[in-house]
Amino acid sequence: MPVVGVIGGGQLARMMVPPAVALGIEIRVLAEQEGSSARLAATQVGDYRDLDTVRAFAAGCDVITFDHEHVPQEVLRTLVADGVSVQPGPDALLAAQDKLHMRERLSAMGVPVPAWARVTTREELSAFLADNGGRAVVKTPRGGYDGKGVRVVDAADAADDWLADGPVLAEQLVDFRRELAQLVARRPSGELRAWPLVETVQKGGVCAEVVAPAPRASDAVERRAAEVATTIAHGLGVTGVLAVEMFETPDGHVLVNELAMRPHNSGHFSIDAAVTSQFEQHLRAVLDWPLGDTELIAPHAVMINVFGGLTDGQIAQALGHQPAAKVHAYGKSPRPGRKAGHVTAFGDDLDDVAYRARAAAAHFDA
Amino acid sequence: MPVVGVIGGGQLARMMVPPAVALGIEIRVLAEQEGSSARLAATQVGDYRDLDTVRAFAAGCDVITFDHEHVPQEVLRTLVADGVSVQPGPDALLAAQDKLHMRERLSAMGVPVPAWARVTTREELSAFLADNGGRAVVKTPRGGYDGKGVRVVDAADAADDWLADGPVLAEQLVDFRRELAQLVARRPSGELRAWPLVETVQKGGVCAEVVAPAPRASDAVERRAAEVATTIAHGLGVTGVLAVEMFETPDGHVLVNELAMRPHNSGHFSIDAAVTSQFEQHLRAVLDWPLGDTELIAPHAVMINVFGGLTDGQIAQALGHQPAAKVHAYGKSPRPGRKAGHVTAFGDDLDDVAYRARAAAAHFDA
Repeated sequence: MPVVGVIGGGQLARMMVPPAVALGIEIRVLAEQEGSSARLAATQVGDYRDLDTVRAFAAGCDVITFDHEHVPQEVLRTLVADGVSVQPGPDALLAAQDKLHMRERLSAMGVPVPAWARVTTREELSAFLADNGGRAVVKTPRGGYDGKGVRVVDAADAADDWLADGPVLAEQLVDFRRELAQLVARRPSGELRAWPLVETVQKGGVCAEVVAPAPRASDAVERRAAEVATTIAHGLGVTGVLAVEMFETPDGHVLVNELAMRPHNSGHFSIDAAVTSQFEQHLRAVLDWPLGDTELIAPHAVMINVFGGLTDGQIAQALGHQPAAKVHAYGKSPRPGRKAGHVTAFGDDLDDVAYRARAAAAHFDA
Repeated sequence: MPVVGVIGGGQLARMMVPPAVALGIEIRVLAEQEGSSARLAATQVGDYRDLDTVRAFAAGCDVITFDHEHVPQEVLRTLVADGVSVQPGPDALLAAQDKLHMRERLSAMGVPVPAWARVTTREELSAFLADNGGRAVVKTPRGGYDGKGVRVVDAADAADDWLADGPVLAEQLVDFRRELAQLVARRPSGELRAWPLVETVQKGGVCAEVVAPAPRASDAVERRAAEVATTIAHGLGVTGVLAVEMFETPDGHVLVNELAMRPHNSGHFSIDAAVTSQFEQHLRAVLDWPLGDTELIAPHAVMINVFGGLTDGQIAQALGHQPAAKVHAYGKSPRPGRKAGHVTAFGDDLDDVAYRARAAAAHFDA
């Protein structure tokens, strides 16, 4: 029985537990603290930035993978030097850890991205603003997520605080029709499979809703999105799940926004609505096992995030009113704005599916 | 977060873990020994026949349910007297523990069963044989499963060894076209849902294959099977999943063979191929939460048991050759004849589905 070690005890590690149970894989989690979302599989609690902690955890595992991308490069590279199978590896992960590095790598591969610049001074930001109509998105290269570390600016001094700590990424403020996400999985020996392209709906910089497949996507956009994600996965040598978040422009092109090298919120629909979920596929991929079919089990699926918390009473109400909805609770203590769970519905008619998913999720409105 | 305690650490407890993770239910297992199939959730190891052990386990749980039906009545009744929610309760469970009691209860409800008799002597068996064409099935009232404790006899002295220990159940040797199973789930407040009727194929007295829905079943048989299972569930006050194994006779009637009051091998197809799996439904039912939709996600599903063991190499081969098949490994040490896992395939065409399931399962032939 293979042993997969997951660094990080969040909901992504938690959601790897069911497919590990199914496939007879032993899953162990290095959690940040007691009572983590993945506590059922947490065999160790400790700091993922501490080499000795991570080394001790990795000692009993056949492969190390991740709930998040924050493990320091020095730790990752030491593991690899120790002979540990780290999937995805440090070179690939760097592109998910450092947005400047990511933009450089993608541009070098010819992948379509928004206009961008490495900005180290107020003067460079001023020049980028001048070239881009006076407005830009500025991102810290590291540590941003769910809208944090991202700022829309229209003045050269608007990123002074971040520039004091080092270079930032300045990007064209893209005029987009909608946001899409293309998930693929790749195993070390090269096999790659893509799920259907999905539309992601953000609220306040955070994913609120995912529609699979992306409604009314042209064949050209679907093909291009899959090509782009495939190019990135092979080009960066990603193993496991890769999520490529993209903008669809009004003229029907795609531009890559962000990358995630792990199961991703935009793929949660696949747990209930695809033949192989992103969590099962991630485990198979990091073990270099053959990948599974990625097609949907129904024509349409809609996933809605639940924020804050889910009480037992709310769960029972949602299940009672929407008996075909699949409710997922992450076992986290409630906190405003926290991703606490999600709901998925699937079926033949998109309007009906979206209605049912939203009706179920509405039971969790605080 | 509700806490469900499961007595018994076999594969049925193991397969309750994934839906517990999804629904944010804390699952705890009282396992017979270390290294059980459900070890990931095993919070205690001990003897389920020992009252103090079971009481200590139940103390932290909101509800107690089961991986098997072997917990002694005295233990169950003491828990209930302690105020513990035991689902299903001891009265219902008695009909799954004692085949003579089961036959008496079902006959009293008017449920169709094979001709039967309580036999305590060689003379009574002789009389039963004379009334039934000279052959009969004899069963020990307790402890039989998967063909054990069952014997076809044609001589009055053929059950002497069992009669030395007490009465046995003698049953008509039913001429049947095939075996069917009707699964339902019922919650304490009375809500009941039925999955589609399935056909079960036995080899050597053990379930080998399940086809869902049962091919070419007449509307009358489907309706009658659902009626019978519903009558039994309400009549016995079953909570959680009830599996009713039946014979379909050549003239299109159903006769109840066996009952199981827990998730059952005949319902494993539902993990991958129904909107709500029997394991999720069982958890919802024992918590008295609303039940979920039971329809299939595809027109046909076939489940095949894997006996002996599953090596990692065999799993990877099966996944590689059948990328849409769902492989389940129970994490048990290999032993000839042991139920070690199962494979499910689903899709539009029954022949294709059956082919794919069998092709995947064939990788595990020792």
